Amino acid sequence: MIHKTVPFPSRLKQPISPFLRTDPVVHARNQHRWEGPLDEVSLSRYERDGFLWFEGFFNQERMLPFFEELKEMANDEKLNKSGRVIHDPNTGEIRSVFGMHELSENFSRLTRDPRILGMVRQLLGSEVYIHQSRINDKYGFEGSGFDWHSDFETWHAEDGMPRMRAVSASLMLTDNNEFNGPLMLIPGSHHYFVPCLGETPDLNWRESLKAQQVGVPDRDSLAKLAERGGIEAPKGPAGSLLLFECNTLHASNTNMSPWPRSNLFFVYNSVENTLGEPYSAKRERPEHLAARENCSPLSMHDDFPELANQGVPPLQSRRVSRAKI
Amino acid sequence: MIHKTVPFPSRLKQPISPFLRTDPVVHARNQHRWEGPLDEVSLSRYERDGFLWFEGFFNQERMLPFFEELKEMANDEKLNKSGRVIHDPNTGEIRSVFGMHELSENFSRLTRDPRILGMVRQLLGSEVYIHQSRINDKYGFEGSGFDWHSDFETWHAEDGMPRMRAVSASLMLTDNNEFNGPLMLIPGSHHYFVPCLGETPDLNWRESLKAQQVGVPDRDSLAKLAERGGIEAPKGPAGSLLLFECNTLHASNTNMSPWPRSNLFFVYNSVENTLGEPYSAKRERPEHLAARENCSPLSMHDDFPELANQGVPPLQSRRVSRAKI
Repeated sequence: MIHKTVPFPSRLKQPISPFLRTDPVVHARNQHRWEGPLDEVSLSRYERDGFLWFEGFFNQERMLPFFEELKEMANDEKLNKSGRVIHDPNTGEIRSVFGMHELSENFSRLTRDPRILGMVRQLLGSEVYIHQSRINDKYGFEGSGFDWHSDFETWHAEDGMPRMRAVSASLMLTDNNEFNGPLMLIPGSHHYFVPCLGETPDLNWRESLKAQQVGVPDRDSLAKLAERGGIEAPKGPAGSLLLFECNTLHASNTNMSPWPRSNLFFVYNSVENTLGEPYSAKRERPEHLAARENCSPLSMHDDFPELANQGVPPLQSRRVSRAKI
Repeated sequence: MIHKTVPFPSRLKQPISPFLRTDPVVHARNQHRWEGPLDEVSLSRYERDGFLWFEGFFNQERMLPFFEELKEMANDEKLNKSGRVIHDPNTGEIRSVFGMHELSENFSRLTRDPRILGMVRQLLGSEVYIHQSRINDKYGFEGSGFDWHSDFETWHAEDGMPRMRAVSASLMLTDNNEFNGPLMLIPGSHHYFVPCLGETPDLNWRESLKAQQVGVPDRDSLAKLAERGGIEAPKGPAGSLLLFECNTLHASNTNMSPWPRSNLFFVYNSVENTLGEPYSAKRERPEHLAARENCSPLSMHDDFPELANQGVPPLQSRRVSRAKI
């Protein structure tokens, strides 16, 4: 079944011009805007650019076990044959693994890291759950790129995500430099929805995760947005973090260096934005690409549960406590 | 006919390890080393890295007429059907035009610019001629890349260039930035010759100029050299100049931006290093890829011939003059 009214029309037979989004970018309203780790400078920048970059957010040592676990997964035959692993069409090497947080307790805990979860809740203005988690791998001299696209365009068209109320956290497991195919973004592109031409083929995801054919914005729109906002490619050591809004246009080039590039992606969606019927596709995608069953709110993971609730309460609540005494 | 002894063996059936070059990098010897526009800091850097970068060498205005002339050439049907124009295998757009200096008096004068020619003569330690001239074009969102290679490897194997005594001058006709597929180089790689596997197919150049299949160094050697010297991609406005030694490994990635990238290449060879029989190919390549006929030394072009020989002579020659008086 396909919806009769589509908030963000795409996969069209006839072109429609890009239009300004109506959804907020920061969803926490009024006083709630500042209830979280991000200050107003960061919030305004996220609203303007559609992403925030934290160079060396975690130290590199903390990333090592995840990289090791990934290498183990690459040798796991059963996993490799499952639909969760996408292979490069040219080389046969692993391109993506989906559902990392369900495969591994370590990755699951990482999605619930208080610092990340605090920022994500603040940006989405609600409790959140994992819509999709994946790792994108680019081997030295090999990993092919990803064409320009908006994730939201696919999640709306193929997964029935109603509104722009999701954010991707991309955590670098290896250094990202100028030459190993880092993520590129067009700052400010998230303000526009770019309807794409071409009907969604049945079972499109079987091919689209290797090389996207539909859901690709036209070159004129891309050129205009890049002319306006430029292109940026954040670079930094393993442990760096990129938060980017679900509608920000992004891409990446081939890895022409000998240095591998592995980036982890956790997509957080608001619990008030769960999936419905796809807007422009005949059937739903599998659970590991678009969660429908496991949508309960994430709780923060505390590495030191025995110290829970340490900290100084805000001034106001302390006053209230005193008044009660 | 193929030579019996090959100074730099390549296009092999059995692998040979990379070996240190025996040829000089700066060819002007002793006192002659400093007879020219490059100072010792620049000469030493060229010897160490295998290239020199001059950001904004010419002003952008001076480049405009060349870019205009190039656009005219793109519309020249006869030229497009000639062997001088190479089209992109994926898009059909122009990828390269060869023999620019023979097609256009403007380009010819540019090859004889006193500043460029002065540096090139100093580096090669002799009079020089144009071995090959070409323009490499990358349209927005289109231009595909070039894999890692040494130009000298091809010129030796397929053109019979005896020694490493040539230098490429690459002049940017458009801005080169991080996103439109700038030239990447491995500093220091020119110190090693990397023999390549795979016999040269007959008429190889018909395919190799679209996408190189033989003459491609193995990944292990590339990784070692990049680990040692890193990778650099000089960036700057139209009018910037790159001088790079004929054996420096270089490559470029796809242009994923809307911004076109056009770079002009003039390959200067020493008149003492003219071509012989190919070392590892059955027949010679066409004249527009490897000059054999027009090898007379280039003379400097002076925009103001009526002011010829203005300037202050060196102190020594003035003393001699006085003594004569």
